[in-house]
Amino acid sequence: MTTTVPALAVPKAGAPFEPVDLTRRDLRPDDVRIDITYAGICHSDIHTVRGEWGDQPFPVTPGHEIVGTVAEVGADVTRHAVGDVVGVGCFVDACLECAACKDGEEQFCERGVIQTYASTDYYGEVTQGGYSGQVVVRDHFVVSIPDGVDLAGTTPLLCAGITTYAPLKRYGAGPGRKVGVIGLGGLGHVGVKIAAAMGAEVTVFSRTDSKKQDGLEFGAADYRATQDGTVFGELAGSFDLILNTVGDAVDLDAYIGLLGRGGTIVNLGAPSDSLTASAFSLLVNRRSLAGSLVGGLPETQEMLDFCAEHGITATVEVIGADQVNEMYDKVVSGGVRYRAVIDASTLTGAA
Amino acid sequence: MTTTVPALAVPKAGAPFEPVDLTRRDLRPDDVRIDITYAGICHSDIHTVRGEWGDQPFPVTPGHEIVGTVAEVGADVTRHAVGDVVGVGCFVDACLECAACKDGEEQFCERGVIQTYASTDYYGEVTQGGYSGQVVVRDHFVVSIPDGVDLAGTTPLLCAGITTYAPLKRYGAGPGRKVGVIGLGGLGHVGVKIAAAMGAEVTVFSRTDSKKQDGLEFGAADYRATQDGTVFGELAGSFDLILNTVGDAVDLDAYIGLLGRGGTIVNLGAPSDSLTASAFSLLVNRRSLAGSLVGGLPETQEMLDFCAEHGITATVEVIGADQVNEMYDKVVSGGVRYRAVIDASTLTGAA
Repeated sequence: MTTTVPALAVPKAGAPFEPVDLTRRDLRPDDVRIDITYAGICHSDIHTVRGEWGDQPFPVTPGHEIVGTVAEVGADVTRHAVGDVVGVGCFVDACLECAACKDGEEQFCERGVIQTYASTDYYGEVTQGGYSGQVVVRDHFVVSIPDGVDLAGTTPLLCAGITTYAPLKRYGAGPGRKVGVIGLGGLGHVGVKIAAAMGAEVTVFSRTDSKKQDGLEFGAADYRATQDGTVFGELAGSFDLILNTVGDAVDLDAYIGLLGRGGTIVNLGAPSDSLTASAFSLLVNRRSLAGSLVGGLPETQEMLDFCAEHGITATVEVIGADQVNEMYDKVVSGGVRYRAVIDASTLTGAA
Repeated sequence: MTTTVPALAVPKAGAPFEPVDLTRRDLRPDDVRIDITYAGICHSDIHTVRGEWGDQPFPVTPGHEIVGTVAEVGADVTRHAVGDVVGVGCFVDACLECAACKDGEEQFCERGVIQTYASTDYYGEVTQGGYSGQVVVRDHFVVSIPDGVDLAGTTPLLCAGITTYAPLKRYGAGPGRKVGVIGLGGLGHVGVKIAAAMGAEVTVFSRTDSKKQDGLEFGAADYRATQDGTVFGELAGSFDLILNTVGDAVDLDAYIGLLGRGGTIVNLGAPSDSLTASAFSLLVNRRSLAGSLVGGLPETQEMLDFCAEHGITATVEVIGADQVNEMYDKVVSGGVRYRAVIDASTLTGAA
């Protein structure tokens, strides 16, 4: 038996969203049913439904930034109760037995993590994401939203927040450390806020000055337009950590040159072109180019608590279900400031 | 006033070595004059004199793996005394006042480190390296060779030893850690010995099985020929650290795939082609691609002491000055096992 809920789905690669009815499973003993309040739009959603990341099990309902209220819990659930405000991020199941899971890094589960949408789960079902009225998720993969936070602004933290928080913490962003953030979009603007709250001195790198005032308001100490290239000479060797939040190819060597001794540039996007860096750029100052992929459940909860404590939310545009197609184009063109969140109460189901 | 010593020099890019007379400066108060016993041949020497790393101030006398005996000390020298057995590595001066120098990482001196040869020093003189009878070096840049070690085998440690020791230590090679070493040449064979002595489980990656017995004798627990590619599937995700000691381009993505969670591949060579890695390879398991460049004086001394304590020397062929041209071709073809060292007593000076 299943429950039918309204949702948005893309029927084939590159097609627009259509209102659909989606079925959600009855609860297993360790499941939580969530009435979704908001679902964020991540650039990954767009890559996926447009077929830019390979073939997908269409129809696809994306959405891996989910906030809502617990509507029902399975018999064995102890972590969450009906009425709790909770969140779901980029994945909804993992083995919980391998070394990665035991270390709280379920995203690297050795059996294979189950992504929140377009993933075939351990039961053979294709997962469907948060652009829907409800979602049913194993309790371990549901985090608590701290009391009193702005829910719409908190929603994108489930992906953009943890994606930036994890490397900022891992590489020691804090007082006395200089952190650069390349790109002031959905990921980047959250990264600036978190890095500044950690006490780091943050510089935004953006092509033009158009977002300068916003960048400084988000907590950056400095904002540099990169289009004339002069910044790469002026600030050479001065950064401890740089987060590259831009999905398209950037001139990595130019940014690597900004790193001081032992500095790291972390690539958070997944451009289809290979990253290229000169061996010499890395030798000098023993620099590193690192990847990072969201974070596990314990760290996601820690990030939400950190953001609540520091008053950090994403800066969002809340939209209705009928605006999602248009918003996708706006996200791709860089026009959204700074993350779009769908109000799930506007979902209608199939016509 | 200067001292004339016998040496080998290359008069122009790509030319063979010729016996020459080289002048060494009179001592400044903080200088040490060293009668050279051995000078190692590093692949960097070959790249430099063959013009593969750009134009050079010819004639060039290379050599940055130097062991000898102190012949004379300046008035202010307290660290070394006449008769001490000492070593000189890849650089011979730095400002000693910047943050890098104060942290004992003189190789990243902000004023610019002075390399042992083919570098213009702070006095406007071009440095000349160890393929010579004597060298005069500022005392800070002279390390002590521990008592009782084999001098010829210790000579290559001044470059190959510190180049591998520093990243092995930085990234935690030790008991319970799996370390891969790509390439079993001058650098690689020393890396295997040091990593094994640190307690790590070491795997050698080499194109063919031809050096298998040597690899295992050097301390590797495993040796894998990579030419058929099967190893990349079999050992996927199982390494904590991989040192790439190969100067030519390798398939980095294949090796990155061997890294487990938080694993790092350190590139020690300086191929002229850019390094390329897929963003996806780095995201998975939050892997890093890092550079490393020799090590500072304190760590070089620490490495020499570690190697003496663990009985580690490079496996060397000792040659006379008249065999250097021929040995260069042998190094390039991968025929030397495993590092060539010039007996400085065979230098004759200009005919």
